[in-house]
Amino acid sequence: MLVIGDEILSGRTREANVQVLARALAPIGVDLTEVRVVRDDTSAIVAAIDALRASHDIVVTSGGIGPTHDDITAEAVAAAFGVSLNIRDDARALLEQAAADRGVPVTEGLLRMARIPDGAGLIDNNVSAAPGFRIGNVYVMAGVPVIFEAMVGAVIPTLPTGTPLVARSLRVYRPEGAFAADLSLVAEEFADVSIGSYPQRRDGTFVVEIVVRGTETSRVEATLVRLLGVIGGERS
Amino acid sequence: MLVIGDEILSGRTREANVQVLARALAPIGVDLTEVRVVRDDTSAIVAAIDALRASHDIVVTSGGIGPTHDDITAEAVAAAFGVSLNIRDDARALLEQAAADRGVPVTEGLLRMARIPDGAGLIDNNVSAAPGFRIGNVYVMAGVPVIFEAMVGAVIPTLPTGTPLVARSLRVYRPEGAFAADLSLVAEEFADVSIGSYPQRRDGTFVVEIVVRGTETSRVEATLVRLLGVIGGERS
Repeated sequence: MLVIGDEILSGRTREANVQVLARALAPIGVDLTEVRVVRDDTSAIVAAIDALRASHDIVVTSGGIGPTHDDITAEAVAAAFGVSLNIRDDARALLEQAAADRGVPVTEGLLRMARIPDGAGLIDNNVSAAPGFRIGNVYVMAGVPVIFEAMVGAVIPTLPTGTPLVARSLRVYRPEGAFAADLSLVAEEFADVSIGSYPQRRDGTFVVEIVVRGTETSRVEATLVRLLGVIGGERS
Repeated sequence: MLVIGDEILSGRTREANVQVLARALAPIGVDLTEVRVVRDDTSAIVAAIDALRASHDIVVTSGGIGPTHDDITAEAVAAAFGVSLNIRDDARALLEQAAADRGVPVTEGLLRMARIPDGAGLIDNNVSAAPGFRIGNVYVMAGVPVIFEAMVGAVIPTLPTGTPLVARSLRVYRPEGAFAADLSLVAEEFADVSIGSYPQRRDGTFVVEIVVRGTETSRVEATLVRLLGVIGGERS
């Protein structure tokens, strides 16, 4: 995933779309393995798109496809693929219809959002009409969370699926250091599942959530049972 | 910045530390220009550290320095720098003292957190004692937000400073498309500041926040005044 936007890197906005994408991909068995966040800068966007599309099956981008001058994702994606970027009739029709429905004029800014790289397919936006697009293995989506989520929802049914991971977790009310060695032995024994240990401090007490993930429910369950026996705690 | 952790990429946890770091760097005039998020995977961490430390002045990492088997950041950083990783006396003393204060035993897991790459300096942790460390231009910090924030606070006074950006913003209650062309002209005229336009929908109405950033207060103010004249809206 590539998140595009100065507002994240300046600290103005807390990033929200990574979790939305991760949670949408998990049920279809697609792993999110890398995220990058870059500025509203064409060369930074192009470099990140090129690196990610070469090293991953699918790239989803978030941000920078609105109507204003700082929305430069479409240009950057076109540049990365070496194709031209023009207003396309089907995208323009969607925007004109939405403007008519709202009784607002069709402006130059609005039509910026009808510029689609040559050869791309459109991604539905049932919130504000302005489409995202797909070119090659890159899915270009809006940054506004409610629109990003709608576009993810439109794309998920079209993606190739994998084997979803099964997750089970338990909660331990001791500091991690107290059971880390035991946990390590269980992790070695059950090498076909992944075990993550996530400490939190709540009101001054230790709470550790241990999450077991794997493709086979029986193995994940067996790991959890072993952990409960060795470390204690309770299912969460 | 490099965020390390399966819990972010699986969607279990919403990332929180990027914003903390960005907001701490802004007042000292240091720009956060790129973030990557990678899995708890040694080769992924090493590759990201090597790429980021070569292309940026400073790299801050978050996550993976706890006591459990899935905390592999220290090994990965040592591998990236080609140095060895051993339990160090000063780090061990910090952990032993904290364990004594809490009346908990010093375990093997606890001592994992005293393993520091050769040549690194320690980063104070006034929350849970286990130190972060700095090696070269890479600052390695905990992922637990309260501890990450404490470590950032310890490091900020030691960093080289730049010219802080001044930010002013206004709020416009129209869709972006309605004023995008005017905004673009102002952005061209005031090319020495950056202008970002961030739409939100609140209860079905359009709210756009326009943020002007620059190093000179007078230019940022002049841009804001021009925007208020051309586009309208109110200071926010």
